[in-house]
Amino acid sequence: MVDTSKFDDLGFLLKPENVAWYEDGKVRILDRRIYPVRTEFVVCERHEDVAQAIADMVTQSGGPYTAAAMGMALAAYEVKDAPEAEVREHLTKAAYTLSHARPTTTAKMQVVTARCLEAAEKALDEGVHGEALIEVLAQKAFDLLDGMYTQCESAAAHLAKHVPQGGTVMTQCFAEAYVGMIIRHCRRLGNEIKMICPETRPYFQGARLTASVASEMGLDVTLITDNMPAYVLSQGMVDLFTSAADVITMDGYVVNKVGTLQIAISANRYGVPYFCTGTPNKGHPTIDTVKIEQRDPELVTMAMDLKVTHPEVKGYYPAFDITPPELVGAIVTDRGLYSPYDLESYPGPLTGVGL
Amino acid sequence: MVDTSKFDDLGFLLKPENVAWYEDGKVRILDRRIYPVRTEFVVCERHEDVAQAIADMVTQSGGPYTAAAMGMALAAYEVKDAPEAEVREHLTKAAYTLSHARPTTTAKMQVVTARCLEAAEKALDEGVHGEALIEVLAQKAFDLLDGMYTQCESAAAHLAKHVPQGGTVMTQCFAEAYVGMIIRHCRRLGNEIKMICPETRPYFQGARLTASVASEMGLDVTLITDNMPAYVLSQGMVDLFTSAADVITMDGYVVNKVGTLQIAISANRYGVPYFCTGTPNKGHPTIDTVKIEQRDPELVTMAMDLKVTHPEVKGYYPAFDITPPELVGAIVTDRGLYSPYDLESYPGPLTGVGL
Repeated sequence: MVDTSKFDDLGFLLKPENVAWYEDGKVRILDRRIYPVRTEFVVCERHEDVAQAIADMVTQSGGPYTAAAMGMALAAYEVKDAPEAEVREHLTKAAYTLSHARPTTTAKMQVVTARCLEAAEKALDEGVHGEALIEVLAQKAFDLLDGMYTQCESAAAHLAKHVPQGGTVMTQCFAEAYVGMIIRHCRRLGNEIKMICPETRPYFQGARLTASVASEMGLDVTLITDNMPAYVLSQGMVDLFTSAADVITMDGYVVNKVGTLQIAISANRYGVPYFCTGTPNKGHPTIDTVKIEQRDPELVTMAMDLKVTHPEVKGYYPAFDITPPELVGAIVTDRGLYSPYDLESYPGPLTGVGL
Repeated sequence: MVDTSKFDDLGFLLKPENVAWYEDGKVRILDRRIYPVRTEFVVCERHEDVAQAIADMVTQSGGPYTAAAMGMALAAYEVKDAPEAEVREHLTKAAYTLSHARPTTTAKMQVVTARCLEAAEKALDEGVHGEALIEVLAQKAFDLLDGMYTQCESAAAHLAKHVPQGGTVMTQCFAEAYVGMIIRHCRRLGNEIKMICPETRPYFQGARLTASVASEMGLDVTLITDNMPAYVLSQGMVDLFTSAADVITMDGYVVNKVGTLQIAISANRYGVPYFCTGTPNKGHPTIDTVKIEQRDPELVTMAMDLKVTHPEVKGYYPAFDITPPELVGAIVTDRGLYSPYDLESYPGPLTGVGL
């Protein structure tokens, strides 16, 4: 089994085996919809269950990329005794199903599943099959996670240089490994930062995930509700606002969890820089190619499974919003900081996942 | 007993007997912390319990003014058999206790309790005492509510003229009778408006109170979470943003439920006017005289009584924020619209409660 000890300082939530993990014909995914209220795992016995878990937001942020890759290992398990042609066909279909679980990130998910499929086809060409093929795909899934964590780490190292000594960073939603890596790299620079996390309704990712990672790493972390960022920014309590992105388009727009836009607008008004971590995605040459996912409106009328409105009240739930380049101070990549107006200069792969 | 049927069209929540009501030695207050999940009333047997209920936000928005006035009737009940001097002293102390239940609105609460005290002293001077004095104060409490509702109605009639036909109004928190009166007056103009209500964490006043009033009045109402207003505004889905205010300072600043500021900033960016209902308050000649109430930070880490974070995560809970005059399109008063830069022109009483 692979060694994940190099991630031990990142806290429980970011440990690879808690993100998504293939083992013995099952993929186990930490249920981020309820953690840390309860620590529960969703166990998937078919790759379609993994796709459904992604659609249902059992895992989100960077989690789905690893879940999809682990789902490819599970798909290989499903046909471990089948003829080679059937294995190839099954994996190709699984790659499609897993990458299309959610509409806004399909282009990035396709990069991940394509990498898995390439690895599988190479192995099949070399006569690898059955349990050995599953092992190739499970290892590939871990390598992809490792690659994404490494890329996050490089970007975080660049970002950390821009956080004032003892400064306070405001986050938005859950930026996956970036959160842990920013803390790790600020500490390497002897800078014990603080974090202010808006809670991110309706799923409370900021409260349950970002604040948990920061807390598990021993940071001074303060939670606010989603109506407070502008006031907190107006009071000079924040030195830097950062988020990751679900999509960074080549023309410099950031598509991220709904709420990012209004924090960026307020940060701009109060002179606080907004640094977005991630890499640009040539699958989205302009913002016009991005489809904003609409999720179940009923979820907006609930708080942790309790209905808080009259039944006649409707909900509206755009999962993401769009922050224009004029509000983005920098796109912080593994290769350094880039202007949102100059993303063609980024020398890495333009896939949005650094792969 | 007084007739409240003229408020029947305003829905359950705004019926005076559900806001706060003195009867038979008790003040009954609808518990707005849980409505409409459960319809429960807090019953106060001492005026100090009323002050505590206000501090605990059993009722909020305009509710505390009526609760405090009804609390004065309860204070009279407490000393109904006492000598006159003791009655005067007790009522004076009760006025202080009730008006100081929450810090940000003390100046306005003092206007209400002063009106009650004047009525009591006049009655006592005329030899009224015992049950008759209680009746004078209960009637006064109703008259004050009636006066505030009438003032809301006049302002709403002015505001209604500025809502486009079939337009959509975005609200913030719960503007008490203004909500019902705006709907009533748009309907009188043959304009069936729609409402979009941000939910207003951590108490969900937008979800539970504003959306309930609109829904009880049969309106098309849509709930969003507090991270969505900028996106919704950016999509051209809103024609007018309106809120009430806890304080409107003479220099044109609006102090209202936290979140108002960031909606106003975003509304300004996307060309949507922000109209604040209320009247200026000479108790606050400038914004520097306003103290922003800090509430229990623990509440931010909870959602409907469920703790959603690790125990080490801190909370921060400023109850209000401050919107500067450059973001306020108009202060909509009972006497018409005023520029936030010209509030000295308002000809009504400069008490912030129109009394």
